[in-house]
Amino acid sequence: MINNERTKMFAYEEVANSIATQIASGVFQTGEQIPSVRKLSKSLGVSTTTIEQSYILLEGMGLIQAKPQAGYFVKESRGALPEIEFNKTQPVISTYEGDELIKKLYKGVQLPNVIQFGPAVPSTEILPAKKLNHILGTICRDKEPKGIGYQFPPGNHQLRQHIAKRSSEWGKFSSPDDIVITCGVTEAMNISLKTIAKAGDLLITESPTSFATLQIIESFGMKALELPTHPKHGIDIDSVNKALNDYNNIAGIFICSTNSNPLGSTMPEENKKELYKLCAAKNIPIVEDDVYGELYFGEDRPKPIKAFDEKGIVIYCSSFSKTIAPGYRVGWMYPGKYYDEITKLKILTTYATNSLAQIAIAEFLRTGGYDRALRDLRKKYKSQVAIISEYINEFFPSGTKLSRPQGGFFLWIELPKNINTEKFCDEAIKEKISIAPGAMFSTSKNFQNYIRLSCCSQTTQEIKDAIKKLGEIANSLM
Amino acid sequence: MINNERTKMFAYEEVANSIATQIASGVFQTGEQIPSVRKLSKSLGVSTTTIEQSYILLEGMGLIQAKPQAGYFVKESRGALPEIEFNKTQPVISTYEGDELIKKLYKGVQLPNVIQFGPAVPSTEILPAKKLNHILGTICRDKEPKGIGYQFPPGNHQLRQHIAKRSSEWGKFSSPDDIVITCGVTEAMNISLKTIAKAGDLLITESPTSFATLQIIESFGMKALELPTHPKHGIDIDSVNKALNDYNNIAGIFICSTNSNPLGSTMPEENKKELYKLCAAKNIPIVEDDVYGELYFGEDRPKPIKAFDEKGIVIYCSSFSKTIAPGYRVGWMYPGKYYDEITKLKILTTYATNSLAQIAIAEFLRTGGYDRALRDLRKKYKSQVAIISEYINEFFPSGTKLSRPQGGFFLWIELPKNINTEKFCDEAIKEKISIAPGAMFSTSKNFQNYIRLSCCSQTTQEIKDAIKKLGEIANSLM
Repeated sequence: MINNERTKMFAYEEVANSIATQIASGVFQTGEQIPSVRKLSKSLGVSTTTIEQSYILLEGMGLIQAKPQAGYFVKESRGALPEIEFNKTQPVISTYEGDELIKKLYKGVQLPNVIQFGPAVPSTEILPAKKLNHILGTICRDKEPKGIGYQFPPGNHQLRQHIAKRSSEWGKFSSPDDIVITCGVTEAMNISLKTIAKAGDLLITESPTSFATLQIIESFGMKALELPTHPKHGIDIDSVNKALNDYNNIAGIFICSTNSNPLGSTMPEENKKELYKLCAAKNIPIVEDDVYGELYFGEDRPKPIKAFDEKGIVIYCSSFSKTIAPGYRVGWMYPGKYYDEITKLKILTTYATNSLAQIAIAEFLRTGGYDRALRDLRKKYKSQVAIISEYINEFFPSGTKLSRPQGGFFLWIELPKNINTEKFCDEAIKEKISIAPGAMFSTSKNFQNYIRLSCCSQTTQEIKDAIKKLGEIANSLM
Repeated sequence: MINNERTKMFAYEEVANSIATQIASGVFQTGEQIPSVRKLSKSLGVSTTTIEQSYILLEGMGLIQAKPQAGYFVKESRGALPEIEFNKTQPVISTYEGDELIKKLYKGVQLPNVIQFGPAVPSTEILPAKKLNHILGTICRDKEPKGIGYQFPPGNHQLRQHIAKRSSEWGKFSSPDDIVITCGVTEAMNISLKTIAKAGDLLITESPTSFATLQIIESFGMKALELPTHPKHGIDIDSVNKALNDYNNIAGIFICSTNSNPLGSTMPEENKKELYKLCAAKNIPIVEDDVYGELYFGEDRPKPIKAFDEKGIVIYCSSFSKTIAPGYRVGWMYPGKYYDEITKLKILTTYATNSLAQIAIAEFLRTGGYDRALRDLRKKYKSQVAIISEYINEFFPSGTKLSRPQGGFFLWIELPKNINTEKFCDEAIKEKISIAPGAMFSTSKNFQNYIRLSCCSQTTQEIKDAIKKLGEIANSLM
């Protein structure tokens, strides 16, 4: 789908990505003809040259082939790999052993010319970077120097105002006074944990979950209680219910309920309500990480659990790191009934958040730039996830299973049981490709044959070659 | 003293401040004549108009008076109030009760038109704000958008390089690899505590000490062990020695060894060495907060304890918040032997520090702007402290005692015993003057008749009037 929004892609790249997404999602089947250059040029109102260029790109991606005198056809692919299934495993309380893997991942991030499927860091070229820096540049040239003093917690008022304004989109009418600005979601998670739990306490998490969650919990001397999590529908409600009855030292639930990391799962609204009810009945706080909430592939923004929070027990955390600028380090919280304690801990953790970044983002929200950027990003992430899925279908060994994310930018991949993905990572980095091994995302041994791929760079021939290379490595490890 | 550095003050203001500092420090005594306009104009090489303007300003400040046909003379003042004495009190372990006072202080910060002697926040007009924003503006206009991605811990390499370069000034030859960038010193203190101690542990602190220190310690379920601290020479070494023998759960020492908050004390080099030796022998880590280290009034930069650290047990913390821009939120640490643990905890606390601020400050250091700003700031803080001391001498009730800081921007004031300074604060804020009551700086009841004044705004007639008003309030509370 093409529209008139300004993006940083050339028009022909956009057309190519849109068609690639359609192919990946089965709109056009293998062997089927796609619209002719002339026809598409007419219906989209763009030049035939643009369409030709986009078809050349799609050919290069290996998605279509030209048949002389006939037109362009969807190339034969092996067919989609099966979807990852839900294994209702037992709850796990164990010691996290992923530190060395994480160090390796971070080391890989800093090597030059490495294809970065490993870290969850959007590349600068797909973010609204230039626009944002332009705004900041203007602020810095102001006669009255701005941003030198503190933006005292709860943080910049305009920014909180604009965040509050957006909340009705997901079913909450909030005020700036409900919000506390943080240094990204990491600080928000940190403060949340310190507020609701103490050393020795248990925190329910998804399994698998983000490695930051597991590390932060351990850094406070607390323990994660990992519960089985459905690859599409998120944490298993029955298991939560049972755990709340079985353990008496559960201090809270730590959850990424929408477009989760690493599964890409989104809890159905009914499950979110059910989870909230369970917790509200026992007065168990929910820390909700919603950093991927805006990056949905469907029509509507999934509601976070916070939307159903009547008692103020949900501590909602989000950030602009996946949508605007990771390096700005700006996130926010709805602390609910923990507002006073959380504002105090924010002061005691970093005193305040960078002032200029807050002012610039507030301006970006005010001018509508953020909404335009989000519309653009959703399309990009969706198409990148679809295209890379298609490459994985083509190149990975049989026995591989693949997630079907409904948002975000992660692919969660189950490889045949005999493939150890730590070794896989080591081999991949030798080929200058960074990936994240499954063992990073759990304290259990349940994900030793899994990997997570972040699809947050623009798809290019280089990306295709990298996935092909990963397929070869996987085959060689069988 | 006048030199040719560009500052934001007018030349006549600079002359006036320099003479005010001389008067405050006793170079010119009460009743003594100061140089004639013509003579000073000649010796400084500035116009007679400039000198005349500065003498008018000094008259307005109440520091000199004109005698017709004779010249200008130092005005009779009541004479300096006595210096605060050292009371060797007993060690204190108690619960901090200053939270409400701190809330009041922060509330006052956000009121319009309040004279801010309360918070330790340099006002924008005395900081190198415009230059720094100019640098940042240039960076933002760069064709390749900068600062959008993470500056992954340990942080921006150029910035660490320039910080390392400066370390030889205080006796350490360090490398960028010794340094970790943080979100201000607050995050550095936070991470330090989490590294060296756990809930239930004791941390030795000065008494009085910064309220942030006391609050952060409590936020981790730890306890401060406050030891008697000399108003000029810092923490009492004998008391430290005794405490290390008396208590078996001391996890570390938390100290502001140079130009401390709130006393303005600086430990003599011998004491610093002695403290280090005591701790090294027992392998007790020292967390050293050196945010005021660069703001010395004398000729030489006092060495921090870190300069004597052979075993890597000193965790050095500092920031650019008191010298460049509080709102940028950039600090740094020398974690010593705790480097790995501290880098990990930095990632788990805020992931990274704002990228653009790091890049801009690195550039400010590279171009020498930081050194120029420091030279300027030292003069400003020194003269502000001297002038406000003079006003206090003039207006505060007898029985008042006053600190003699050798750096930084705090004045620590002991009022007659019967004055409750919490009440004093409430009365002051009614007059739109913010001050910090002594009870904020200790878990003990030892400082109920003390206040701290931050002298970090340019001294004006308004400031004089405010001190006069404070004197009136103090008298009314006797």
